[in-house]
Amino acid sequence: MSENKVAIGFGIASKNNNGDWLEAYYPFPMLNPTDALLADLRAVTLSAEGQNATVELFSQDLNDLIDRLDKHPETKSWLYQGMEWMSSVQPIVLVISELQKPPETVPEIYLHLHLLSHRLVKPHSISLEGIFGKLPNVAWTNLGPIDLSELKGRVAEARGQGKFIAVKSVDKFPQMTDYVVPAGVRIGDASRIRLGAYLGEGTTVMHEGFVNFNAGTLGTGMIEGRISAGVVVGKGTDIGGGASTMGTLSGGNSVIISLGENCLVGANAGVGIPLGDRCTVEAGLYVTGGSKVSVLDDQGKEVKKVKAGELAGMNDLLFRRNSISGAIECLTNKKAIALNEELHSNN
Amino acid sequence: MSENKVAIGFGIASKNNNGDWLEAYYPFPMLNPTDALLADLRAVTLSAEGQNATVELFSQDLNDLIDRLDKHPETKSWLYQGMEWMSSVQPIVLVISELQKPPETVPEIYLHLHLLSHRLVKPHSISLEGIFGKLPNVAWTNLGPIDLSELKGRVAEARGQGKFIAVKSVDKFPQMTDYVVPAGVRIGDASRIRLGAYLGEGTTVMHEGFVNFNAGTLGTGMIEGRISAGVVVGKGTDIGGGASTMGTLSGGNSVIISLGENCLVGANAGVGIPLGDRCTVEAGLYVTGGSKVSVLDDQGKEVKKVKAGELAGMNDLLFRRNSISGAIECLTNKKAIALNEELHSNN
Amino acid sequence: MSENKVAIGFGIASKNNNGDWLEAYYPFPMLNPTDALLADLRAVTLSAEGQNATVELFSQDLNDLIDRLDKHPETKSWLYQGMEWMSSVQPIVLVISELQKPPETVPEIYLHLHLLSHRLVKPHSISLEGIFGKLPNVAWTNLGPIDLSELKGRVAEARGQGKFIAVKSVDKFPQMTDYVVPAGVRIGDASRIRLGAYLGEGTTVMHEGFVNFNAGTLGTGMIEGRISAGVVVGKGTDIGGGASTMGTLSGGNSVIISLGENCLVGANAGVGIPLGDRCTVEAGLYVTGGSKVSVLDDQGKEVKKVKAGELAGMNDLLFRRNSISGAIECLTNKKAIALNEELHSNN
Repeated sequence: MSENKVAIGFGIASKNNNGDWLEAYYPFPMLNPTDALLADLRAVTLSAEGQNATVELFSQDLNDLIDRLDKHPETKSWLYQGMEWMSSVQPIVLVISELQKPPETVPEIYLHLHLLSHRLVKPHSISLEGIFGKLPNVAWTNLGPIDLSELKGRVAEARGQGKFIAVKSVDKFPQMTDYVVPAGVRIGDASRIRLGAYLGEGTTVMHEGFVNFNAGTLGTGMIEGRISAGVVVGKGTDIGGGASTMGTLSGGNSVIISLGENCLVGANAGVGIPLGDRCTVEAGLYVTGGSKVSVLDDQGKEVKKVKAGELAGMNDLLFRRNSISGAIECLTNKKAIALNEELHSNN
Repeated sequence: MSENKVAIGFGIASKNNNGDWLEAYYPFPMLNPTDALLADLRAVTLSAEGQNATVELFSQDLNDLIDRLDKHPETKSWLYQGMEWMSSVQPIVLVISELQKPPETVPEIYLHLHLLSHRLVKPHSISLEGIFGKLPNVAWTNLGPIDLSELKGRVAEARGQGKFIAVKSVDKFPQMTDYVVPAGVRIGDASRIRLGAYLGEGTTVMHEGFVNFNAGTLGTGMIEGRISAGVVVGKGTDIGGGASTMGTLSGGNSVIISLGENCLVGANAGVGIPLGDRCTVEAGLYVTGGSKVSVLDDQGKEVKKVKAGELAGMNDLLFRRNSISGAIECLTNKKAIALNEELHSNN
Repeated sequence: MSENKVAIGFGIASKNNNGDWLEAYYPFPMLNPTDALLADLRAVTLSAEGQNATVELFSQDLNDLIDRLDKHPETKSWLYQGMEWMSSVQPIVLVISELQKPPETVPEIYLHLHLLSHRLVKPHSISLEGIFGKLPNVAWTNLGPIDLSELKGRVAEARGQGKFIAVKSVDKFPQMTDYVVPAGVRIGDASRIRLGAYLGEGTTVMHEGFVNFNAGTLGTGMIEGRISAGVVVGKGTDIGGGASTMGTLSGGNSVIISLGENCLVGANAGVGIPLGDRCTVEAGLYVTGGSKVSVLDDQGKEVKKVKAGELAGMNDLLFRRNSISGAIECLTNKKAIALNEELHSNN
């Protein structure tokens, strides 16, 4: 993770009537800028090496920054892609962020979330410490973000004019697609993917799918279930309709769930333990860490009974509930001896 | 409930081309106005004591009403919060509603629903009798409510102009947040909360959560599952992702479900009986009233087998499916004798 | 199916900056036009009998077409319903489609999807072969469809102007209600119904419901669960909250699922086999084709154990998981002998 050192964001933000940041949008977030570029930006933000900076730019400074960006080949194009930076009616913000430090300002937190959804950094590779307490709760409307204390006045005013303000969510996190649409994805209902989600190329999130921040898919996958905060899913893994991955925020245990590659979690199933590669959980079955499971070898004979948590991270497992006996079984393609050894090595 | 007597609403409404009410928005719904204020409003609406009134106000009457509201300290502020009542392009409506009588007009029904979502009244405390038959089915669009018979013409016209009318729902109930955002809540996907929901302060409804009208949470809670019409959830209770509470409208039985305080319903679980306080339902387990359950005492010994419905409303129960035997078990922290007595007292 | 021969669509479309079709909207799609009308349209499109045609119309041709439509009583009204065809800022498109041939162009595919959602044709009655590969992936925004390669520039430009482009989905299929709202339906969350869904009159799709294209309900029904691509549900059948019908696209088997009339699939349940009429699946139970099921006769005695797939399409079955033994049971109102015969006739 040492390579994820510094990022810069030059973007358009919004503030409430008190001048507090509500959010920030970065069309071109950049990871690990060159030393020359970084030095130029530090000159504008007046920040020392190793320091984080969040600076709102007004006419003089903005002009200065634009001149500098124009000299670097990797940022020159930022100035000519539809954005009229100088004439923006919204605040312009420049952020420099050391990524292993907890982000402090709202624009800096938004930069971290952008980096994830732009696939510039992987989940769990940069600091998101304390962001929940620092992000404001915002009304996300068809007119953009509105401070909650200002909402009612705006709504009443609009109504009297025959207009309509629709509030689509009231949340600390916006939906990802209003900021970033990564290449090679399909998303049935974009209200269910928070900014900060990481969707690998080739991912389809169907309408029943959900992806929280600092979570997502590393490659292709058909996601029709819920990827909770922190959960990472390997490539080729499908999550069936309504299936659940247990998070650590509420009700879940403290183990961070991950799923390996080429797994299949059936519709309405649930996973409360990390899975290795090529695992299957039968439709409708919820496997929690504490479930006692009858482990069967490649001949279908029971090797032993274990708590599902002891099978965490193992490959080539199939979980099902025996529809005659009602017992949760775990089938494997391993022989009894090899399986026994693997189970003991996990103890 | 005797205290929930009368409410007044002064708001902005919309009508279809036939002059029928589509909906009404009240920025300041008021419960139990003073006698003096009520007398003033009755004078404007020409309604007698104990009568309901729904009156559209035009220039003369509206002027009169505004003069009267200006004299009462509790309504004076209504006139100076962004609303230009006199210049509204939408119909202005005044409603007086006796809350224990079935509301008759669309603006009156909307006032009842506002009262719930503003937390001025609790679910089941005012009459909602017959509202389903009286509310029109409306297309809720990015341009506001549109009568269904007028929709197609509006859509085609807009398309030809290069504009886009998006229809987000076709329903008798609008989404709550387009009318009310109560303090201290977060809502991941606001399309899943109907006007008339009651969300206690400190409630988070995640993207998979749902709350119907005349239902909700009395205090803090993390709601990631579905709160069906009529279901009330005590404070501190969490409902896991995709979890179901059985409603009485379709498929459910006639028992109104409620959940006590500090309960946890696991992800993809379901509750078909009322729960007391501090109850847990394991992830993935659906407990219906007719499920036969093996009740275990604090030593884990079976006391008896009962239908889950007999456990309705009891505290400190944990429901799980034994993952070896497949049986639904109910654990408790009570001794066998105390438990037996409690079960019999419920018979 | 022989009656579903030809359809025509006269509509408003959109293109990206390269001139590629993004989508098309038809206010009045028509099935099986008269020979006279068809001949007139073939004259405008210069297409021979049996040929498909997708033609963009400019001033001269559009005038010609309008003159012809004005002469036919069944199309005259198309010209006077709010649409100012001649002054449209969007491309005007005319499509003639032989419905049993795979549709080739984007406007033609959209015509097929319109026919389904307008209830002019039933699911599985017209060709949708290969449409997935031919439809572009589009950003569906509050400003309408935007090509994915053009999205970022548009978003950044809007932000600088203090405006907000919200992307509600990124998908090959738009949501149905932005194109068609059939009569007699209610839809809680319209983002969950794709264009090409068929919703029978009297269908309510609640917020947790979902309906894919080429799928739907033939009559009344309360749909609170997911109707996967290709799945058709008979009238009077209710699908409970979060319930799943197994699709054939991912993870499902190759059997196309259908549900008969007056069935009830409980909340959080799942169906992996076709059901006949008057069947019930208990809340929380997922019945897959491979589940071994204990079949009980009208006396509650086990007749035999079968795979659920062998019960496909039979009437009057009730599936439940015995909450004491954990076994999946199938109850029926048939006597042991009749049941045995029926089971064998299915082998």
